[in-house]
Amino acid sequence: MRVFQWSQLSDQQQADVLARPAQSQSAELQQQVAAIIDAVANEGDVAVLRYTRQFDCETLNELRYSEADIAAQANKLSTDVQQAIDTAYATIRAFHLQQQPQDIRVETAPGVVCTQRFDALNAVGLYIPGGTAVLPSTALMLGVPAQIANNPRRVLVSPPDKNGELSPALMYVAQKCGITEVYRCGGAQAIAALAVGTESIAPVAKIFGPGNSFVTAAKQQVAQRSGGPAIDMPAGPSELLVIADDTANPAFVAADLLSQAEHGADSQVILVSPSTSLIEATQSAIEQQLEVLPRSATARKALEQSALIQTESLEQACQISQRYAPEHLSVQMDDAEQYLPQLTLAGSIFIGHYTPESGGDYATGTNHVLPTYGFARNYSSLGLLDFYRRYTTQTVSKQGLAQLSKAIITLAETEGLRAHARAVSIRLENQS
Amino acid sequence: MRVFQWSQLSDQQQADVLARPAQSQSAELQQQVAAIIDAVANEGDVAVLRYTRQFDCETLNELRYSEADIAAQANKLSTDVQQAIDTAYATIRAFHLQQQPQDIRVETAPGVVCTQRFDALNAVGLYIPGGTAVLPSTALMLGVPAQIANNPRRVLVSPPDKNGELSPALMYVAQKCGITEVYRCGGAQAIAALAVGTESIAPVAKIFGPGNSFVTAAKQQVAQRSGGPAIDMPAGPSELLVIADDTANPAFVAADLLSQAEHGADSQVILVSPSTSLIEATQSAIEQQLEVLPRSATARKALEQSALIQTESLEQACQISQRYAPEHLSVQMDDAEQYLPQLTLAGSIFIGHYTPESGGDYATGTNHVLPTYGFARNYSSLGLLDFYRRYTTQTVSKQGLAQLSKAIITLAETEGLRAHARAVSIRLENQS
Repeated sequence: MRVFQWSQLSDQQQADVLARPAQSQSAELQQQVAAIIDAVANEGDVAVLRYTRQFDCETLNELRYSEADIAAQANKLSTDVQQAIDTAYATIRAFHLQQQPQDIRVETAPGVVCTQRFDALNAVGLYIPGGTAVLPSTALMLGVPAQIANNPRRVLVSPPDKNGELSPALMYVAQKCGITEVYRCGGAQAIAALAVGTESIAPVAKIFGPGNSFVTAAKQQVAQRSGGPAIDMPAGPSELLVIADDTANPAFVAADLLSQAEHGADSQVILVSPSTSLIEATQSAIEQQLEVLPRSATARKALEQSALIQTESLEQACQISQRYAPEHLSVQMDDAEQYLPQLTLAGSIFIGHYTPESGGDYATGTNHVLPTYGFARNYSSLGLLDFYRRYTTQTVSKQGLAQLSKAIITLAETEGLRAHARAVSIRLENQS
Repeated sequence: MRVFQWSQLSDQQQADVLARPAQSQSAELQQQVAAIIDAVANEGDVAVLRYTRQFDCETLNELRYSEADIAAQANKLSTDVQQAIDTAYATIRAFHLQQQPQDIRVETAPGVVCTQRFDALNAVGLYIPGGTAVLPSTALMLGVPAQIANNPRRVLVSPPDKNGELSPALMYVAQKCGITEVYRCGGAQAIAALAVGTESIAPVAKIFGPGNSFVTAAKQQVAQRSGGPAIDMPAGPSELLVIADDTANPAFVAADLLSQAEHGADSQVILVSPSTSLIEATQSAIEQQLEVLPRSATARKALEQSALIQTESLEQACQISQRYAPEHLSVQMDDAEQYLPQLTLAGSIFIGHYTPESGGDYATGTNHVLPTYGFARNYSSLGLLDFYRRYTTQTVSKQGLAQLSKAIITLAETEGLRAHARAVSIRLENQS
């Protein structure tokens, strides 16, 4: 892993060290995805089935899982994994329950009452990636807030295995979250079906969840369509920045960096520390732990574009973190809390020596769907609010209107909108 | 204006009546905008000045307004308009002040403390359209919540007039909202500058505000860039749907429909009512009021793609509104409140006979930046929350981690992520 002395780098070198791995968004990929979306829009279920047979399960005949089949699959799950899911469900639910929004009502002037109301989105699509991995944790992170928001339609889609099945763990989560609408399809074809609708899959208002480059491109494309669905946030590879000082345990720091690096060859991990000895010890610990890691080949690739950065101070370390705006930020110091006011630009922050990043991936209760790739500067971590929309109302009495009329008419005339002014004056002239 | 009997229409005819006017998003426009963004990214201020001279003010030399010049312009404003702005500012501030978010702290399991924190975006760009109209109201709708959120950088951009000036009304609003960073530029070049930054304009985290087709395309394009800014919501032409019964005053209904129609030839207005007599009387009132309307040519064009829809019942009228999901929904009935539970899909709702839509444009206190073009199904009305980002933290004690360890390790192994499990077990083996 590369080691850098931050203060000795030029501006350009500093920018290069903190640069994200390039994401391929080739024109070819975009065209392939556009063609899949068009096919689903024109042919409906036929196209979704055709792509699913091509990519996932050759013999698939039925997209939808019946409730009985969801239950049958869920029942196959081992008690161990059931209990693990139960624990995670409980913490995630506890944290998201406290995020429930409150409507407001304000009398902004005498006789003028305004409200802001939160309404659960009428239909949400929850995309759970498939492939070799089974991701019940992502289903929990999307399914639990949707259950609390009580969105009338909660639709789960995920690519089936070669036998046309979704995993027992995934179906156990679906059952716990009260999701009864489950389809065996993934990739751009599933996103297209959720966006434009087919004979068996009605369109949704918003699509949530991570995915590969096809899924990401499809989400972006459907969100640009007239009347297209909203999407949760822009996607990118996973990343972790650790700030640590001499009080940190290098074996813990190494384990956290590796847990992020094993996600994928495009993951990025960064350690920022003023301590030479911690950086050296972490480097050794990484090498030692890599030897017993099953996914070490993936992790080694991710480490090539990662960095150990030595700073002059903890303040400088915090500045680097704010500039990088990591998806996951781990602060491993005895007095970590003291630095939090300086550390705001991150998706989720892991505080202290006993808060591994993997804890938040599964079971502390926070959501693991987070802005990455620098988007933590301007996008929010996924939360319960993302499953609602806000709208407003106003009720004005005749007296209230009379009081505001001069302001409205003056502003309307300033903006050259005479009919806007007339809609007020006509109401006050009228004697009825 | 076309009149339809809803129940006599075929499914396709119903869909056609509620179809939005097509928006031109020509490939040529997209390419022009992409070229402008590239030019600004490569040449910085030089390109912004060049386009501003080309489109707005031939002699412009300085993009930024000094604070002294903001004050000097604001001082030119007439007392009448000052007072109108003061009134609107007060109601808008009162309504948005009550939207302040609260951080939360939850102990999700013994020794596991999670928080959700709201942080004001560090820099917001507020786009105010220019051209022939002067739009102080839009500046209020963006500037007041930014002032309450206290975003550290609040940047206002707007195209200058031929003399290189922004209007006194706009500068008065800037001053009231504590905006000190004001630039004389508009169009795609202003959006590009806010997104990628130039020598004189540092980039922002999120761009707000309406604009013409160039501005809209530029916002969409910069939001797709790696590390690009967030944007407030997708844009579209303005629209109003009125639900009314026999208790409504046709002159009021006509005035509201016309106030929306005068916005632009692409505006759409729809009246839905079970009352034949109201529809007929409204139609006459529209003709009558059109005769004295300065922008009647614009309004007439908008009315061509608008509709008066006769329904069998008020319930059917509500269903049509929910299907259309209007930006503005006006409910003009004596017992309007009773129908609100059935009317959720709208940007903002205007309740009763004395609540003209133009009231909300200026001075009831609600925000007039609203999802249009059907996006009220899945996007929120602009509010204070849009000026913040949410992130989470977690702090786990050694005991807390021990308690969650089985769940985390089991889930990590289910997902094939051994290093995730190891980051937990290494902390519990360790005796330090």
